[in-house]
Parts: sequence; C-alpha cells; structure tokens
Amino acid sequence: MKKILLLGASGSIGTQCMDVVSHHRNDFTIIGLSIGYNIAKLKECLALFPEVQRVCVAQEKDCLALRTQYPSIQFSYGEDGLSELCAWSEYDLLVNAVVGFRGLRPTLTAITHDKDVALANKESLVVGGSLIKQALREHQSTLYPIDSEHSAIFQCLRGNEAHAVDRLIITASGGSFRDRTREELAQVSVQDALHHPNWQMGARITIDSATMMNKGFEVIEAHYLFDVPFDRIETLLHRESLIHSMVQFQDDAILAQMGTPDMRLPIQYALYYPERHKIYGSEPLDFKHLSALHFQAMDFDRYPLLRLAYEVGERGGNGGAILNSADEQAVAHFLKGHISFLEIEQVIFEAIAKLPFIAHPSLTDLLDSDAAARHFVDEYVERI
Amino acid sequence: MKKILLLGASGSIGTQCMDVVSHHRNDFTIIGLSIGYNIAKLKECLALFPEVQRVCVAQEKDCLALRTQYPSIQFSYGEDGLSELCAWSEYDLLVNAVVGFRGLRPTLTAITHDKDVALANKESLVVGGSLIKQALREHQSTLYPIDSEHSAIFQCLRGNEAHAVDRLIITASGGSFRDRTREELAQVSVQDALHHPNWQMGARITIDSATMMNKGFEVIEAHYLFDVPFDRIETLLHRESLIHSMVQFQDDAILAQMGTPDMRLPIQYALYYPERHKIYGSEPLDFKHLSALHFQAMDFDRYPLLRLAYEVGERGGNGGAILNSADEQAVAHFLKGHISFLEIEQVIFEAIAKLPFIAHPSLTDLLDSDAAARHFVDEYVERI
Repeated sequence: MKKILLLGASGSIGTQCMDVVSHHRNDFTIIGLSIGYNIAKLKECLALFPEVQRVCVAQEKDCLALRTQYPSIQFSYGEDGLSELCAWSEYDLLVNAVVGFRGLRPTLTAITHDKDVALANKESLVVGGSLIKQALREHQSTLYPIDSEHSAIFQCLRGNEAHAVDRLIITASGGSFRDRTREELAQVSVQDALHHPNWQMGARITIDSATMMNKGFEVIEAHYLFDVPFDRIETLLHRESLIHSMVQFQDDAILAQMGTPDMRLPIQYALYYPERHKIYGSEPLDFKHLSALHFQAMDFDRYPLLRLAYEVGERGGNGGAILNSADEQAVAHFLKGHISFLEIEQVIFEAIAKLPFIAHPSLTDLLDSDAAARHFVDEYVERI
Repeated sequence: MKKILLLGASGSIGTQCMDVVSHHRNDFTIIGLSIGYNIAKLKECLALFPEVQRVCVAQEKDCLALRTQYPSIQFSYGEDGLSELCAWSEYDLLVNAVVGFRGLRPTLTAITHDKDVALANKESLVVGGSLIKQALREHQSTLYPIDSEHSAIFQCLRGNEAHAVDRLIITASGGSFRDRTREELAQVSVQDALHHPNWQMGARITIDSATMMNKGFEVIEAHYLFDVPFDRIETLLHRESLIHSMVQFQDDAILAQMGTPDMRLPIQYALYYPERHKIYGSEPLDFKHLSALHFQAMDFDRYPLLRLAYEVGERGGNGGAILNSADEQAVAHFLKGHISFLEIEQVIFEAIAKLPFIAHPSLTDLLDSDAAARHFVDEYVERI
C-alpha cells in the first residue's frame, strides 16, 4: 500500500490522480492533500478519501473553519503549510500537481526528506532545475514525470543505459495557430488563441502551446529529468499528438511511445512504477481507424520563444525563473486584452535581455527573479 | 570478447553480420562459420577473419580441397557437419543465418549445448517452435531475434514485465501487390511479384511478402519468441515500413520501434545485447523529411495465407512444417512459371487440409512432414 500526499487536488491532474487511486484502493491511499480555494471540492475529496489525515489550504480563514468541521484532520494553510506538509514523515510519494512557481518549494522539501516525487508542476524544473538536481544528488529520492511527453521519454528509456541515448525527440501539436503565418498572428483574438486543436486545457497552457513556450519549458524539464544536453533534445511538429515523444539511441533505433491522449496513463505509470496495470475505462489507440501520423520540422522562426527557451536553458542560472514568470504575466495581460498575441513574445524577450543574470541562484534569488520579471512585464505593458 | 559461430555467412544476413563484427573487432571475433557452395566468398571471409578455426561447407569435395589449402582450419561438410559445429564448446553465440528448414537442427544443437542463439533462420521457430521452447526450458540458453519485426518487439519489451504486455502489433508493408485487388492478382507475372515496394530481397521472401505468408511466419515466430497467444498478436498494414513493430501494454501505452530499414541494427542489437552502440555508416530516420506514416487495417480476405498461418500456429503440431515446406515448394513452382500467383495459396491450403496432422511431432516427424508437403505440392502442380 503506497501512501500518497497529493498537492493541487482540485486541478485537472489532481482530479485524475484521485480517479486513478479510487480504482486501485488496494494499492494506494491518499493520506494528505492540498487544495487552494475550492473548499467545496475539498469536502468532496474528504468524503471520497476518509483516510486523509492532513490537509493544507490557501487561506487561514478556511483553515480555521475546517478545523472545527473535521476535528480528526490536521489542517494548515499557505506556502509554509504546504512545505510543512511535505516534510511529514508518513507518506511514500508526493504527487505535486500544484500550478505555478509555488510548486518548487514542496518538491525541494520532499526530496530533502528522501521522498519520491511524481511531478506535474512544471515550474519545479523550469525555475529550480539546478537546485532540484543538487538535492537529488544528496538524497534518496526518485523523480517521476507526470506529463505525457516526459512520461513517454521515461517509458522509452526504460531498461536502457543512459549512455545509449543519442537524442530525445519531443513532439508538439503546434497549438491553436499552427496553420497561420506570423503575419496572421498580429491580428488573432484571445478567443482564437484559447481554441486548441487537440484538447481542452487551462487558459495559460493553451496560450503557451500556441506560442510554443510550453514546449520550451518541456525541453528545459527534459534536460533536468534525463540529463541530456540541450543540443540533443529535438522538437518535432506532430499534428495528431498520438506519439507523445521519442528517444533515439546510439544505434539509430528510435523508440516512440504512443496512445490516445489520457493523462491518467502518465499519472498511473508514475504511481505504479515499475508496474503497468489496466486503466479503468481507457480507450486504446485503434490503428484500424487511424490512417496516418504526420510530422513537420520545427520552425524556430515561427516559434521564437522555443528558440529562446533553448538559449535560456543552456545558460542556466535564474533564466528559467525569469522566463517562466515573464511568460505567466504576459499571458495574463494578453488574456485581459492588454497586449496583443505577438507582444507576449516581445515582452518575454525584453525581460530576458534586461533583467540581471545570476549564474548560481539560491531559492531566494529565484523568488526575487520571479518577482522582478512580473514587475518588469507589468511596467512594459503600462508603457505600450 | 564474444566468440561468434556464424552459419550462412554468404547470405545477406551473414554478410551484414561480418560487416558489424569487422567494425567492432575489440568486442567480437568470428571463430567458426558455415557457407554452402560459394567457396570464393568463403575464401574472402577467411582473409577477413583469420581467427576462424572451423568451417562447414555443403559438399564433401569442397571440404577435401579446402583441407589442403587451409591446413590450420578444421573443415566439415553437410548437415551433420553443421550440427557437429554447433556442438563445439568454444563459441559464445551462434548466429544462425542459414536459409530454410536445415537451420532448425543447428539451433536445437546450440540450445542443448547451452549456447546463446541469434536467430535469423525463420524455419527454426515456424517449423520447430515447440521443440525449441522445450529445449530452452531445459537449458541455459537465450534466443535473440534477428529480423526487424521481432527485434523491434524485443526492444519495446525491454525492461517491461511479461505480464504487462497486452498485445504485439506486427507491421507489414503489404508487399508488391498491396495496391491490387484479388481479381487483379489472377493475372500478375513473376516479374511483377519480384518488385517489392520498399526494398530488394531474395525471390522467395519477396513472393512471401506479396502473399503475406511471410507475415504469417512472423506471427508464429513471435508467438514462440515472446510467449504471447495468437489472439494477442495483431498485424497492421504500414506502407512505409519505418515502424518495425509495436507492443501495446496493459495500460494501453504503445511502444513502437522505428528507424531507417537497416538489418545491421537487429544484428548488432542481438550481438551486443544489452548494450547499444553506433552502427558504422547508418542513416538515422530524419523526421524533418518524413511527412507521414500511414496505417491500414489488415485485410484477411485479401491475404488468406495470413489467416491460415494464425490457424496453423494456433493448432501447433506439424502444421508449421507443412505450411513452410508447401509454401517454399509452391513459390519455387510459381517462379518457374508452373503455377499462377493465386495457385500458390490454393496448393498451400490443400496441403494443410490433406496432409496428416501430428500433435506432438519429433524432429523426425517434422522432417517427414516437410518431405511429404514438398511431394504433395509437386503432385498437385503436375495435376493442374
């Protein structure tokens, strides 16, 4: 019985993680969880998983109210509460599905307490990759990726030696504007941008898919997860999003992991590793009704933020923090109609060019860089 | 340093095996080999690999002549010579690239002498699958597949547990007549049949690709190699022959092995297993210039011999011996213009229907079934 601590239970990954656990109750139990502001959802979770012993929420007032309603559960709140929860000795695996920069500290805390981490929080590696690698070297902890691309690579690497790898090939759908030229991008609306061709996702990641910033983050994550240098991480346009990613080995053999998009697969793979089990109600890819898979070389002129992510990743330091935070803030301004689609790129390039570079940042430096980049973007947006 | 015994050195697989070994002389040495009638080629091999200590040829007269020319090498001849060579204690790995039914005894001999076998000889498993499985259970020997489909599956299975496998998916190019209807097949010429869309191969295997008999043999081989029941081995039309085969796991994850067709990859993979190394002069698959991969459901009405292979495989016994030998003989008659393309199928179906079934055949029974099927086909051809 694996005891799970689930952070970010109300989000899409959190919800699907609970779905997986609820179908494998003999193998997993959720003993702790965090939820931000959605207290109604939290109550549903507690009804579903009465074995939960500790809960962290965002606000003190929710925490206080919950303490009286659930006297047998230990409640905490805020970022300190989250880190404290991750330092708990009772759990076996942290599933970190927190969204945003505040997911980094919990990841670091779990690793430094020798806990395994199933990671859905992109910022942990994009912002804090070098700190996490350092912590992993010093502790008995294993990192399992929870997203389709990195889980695909993790599956392809299985049983192979690290030095047998020639390159990683990360596939990209191309996002909502893949069939438009850069000239056409000048005029696109928020409405257009939020319409992803292959699936429904949150607003930020849908925009990050359209700018290919998201793929850039995945390249940086892959670098830290699999210890592969940036010049051996390729990106490839693949419209159907059925090949989730690939690994090319020294002997030119390529292994590709494919399937119907279903986030429960990478979640369950991380939870059960090294075992594989049926996924309740999943639909296998049916080649009989799939006529073709398409590929197209990545176009870095079309997607300059992807090229920027390679450069930022290569340089290291606090670049990931600036990149992530400038992007998050720029996308927020775009969604509010403050800036145009192409201005998202402009302001991020400016932030990377103008903000001071720190080669070996501490966690505090990363926090400061995050705040500085947000501030920079706000000022930039006000100016134009 | 792995000491290799190479049977069938003059054929395509044998030649490519020597190419692989010649580029990795610190890791492999060929200490023994067999060649049928091509004595000129044998002399080239001996010049390339002066470390060869034993050689088997087809005919006594060649054997006698060679003994005087190469006094330091031990020569033998014929099928007994071949089996004797495989009983030699000195080698580490048998590479069996013999063509045809006479490849079975050497495989069995090697296994019963606890030697590992890299198997390119299809008939070993198609005809003698159950005998080989029995021998493998009783001896310390590992079988490595040398052909692109089974090597692909072997690579996809790597690091995964056998019970995690849901199904194998073997890809098929469709052969030279894939774009013709069955009606059109009545009129096709030998010339047409020998023109494979994706590569150049020997005459029999090219015809076997067009009838899909070859894919049927591969299904039977896969059953014995990977212990997967026939109803969980699928075949899928894939025109480009770039995905060499796939494995679908219990969690619906599919791993596919892809690459530019190059037989040196499965050869080197078998020789070096579990290591992977660069292949001299190989060309990696370039997705930037590959626009699409196509798939189409297998059509068993279009390819009745494939359906027959499933039935014969499922029933076991001496069926594989009859199937293989009837096919070999029928293809020979087709190539000589004695029968039409569709009559290849007819005579094989007749042979399976009419010849006596033996549920638990000995090696002698298999030899007899092989001869009986050849004889049956000859008589059938004379009648029509």
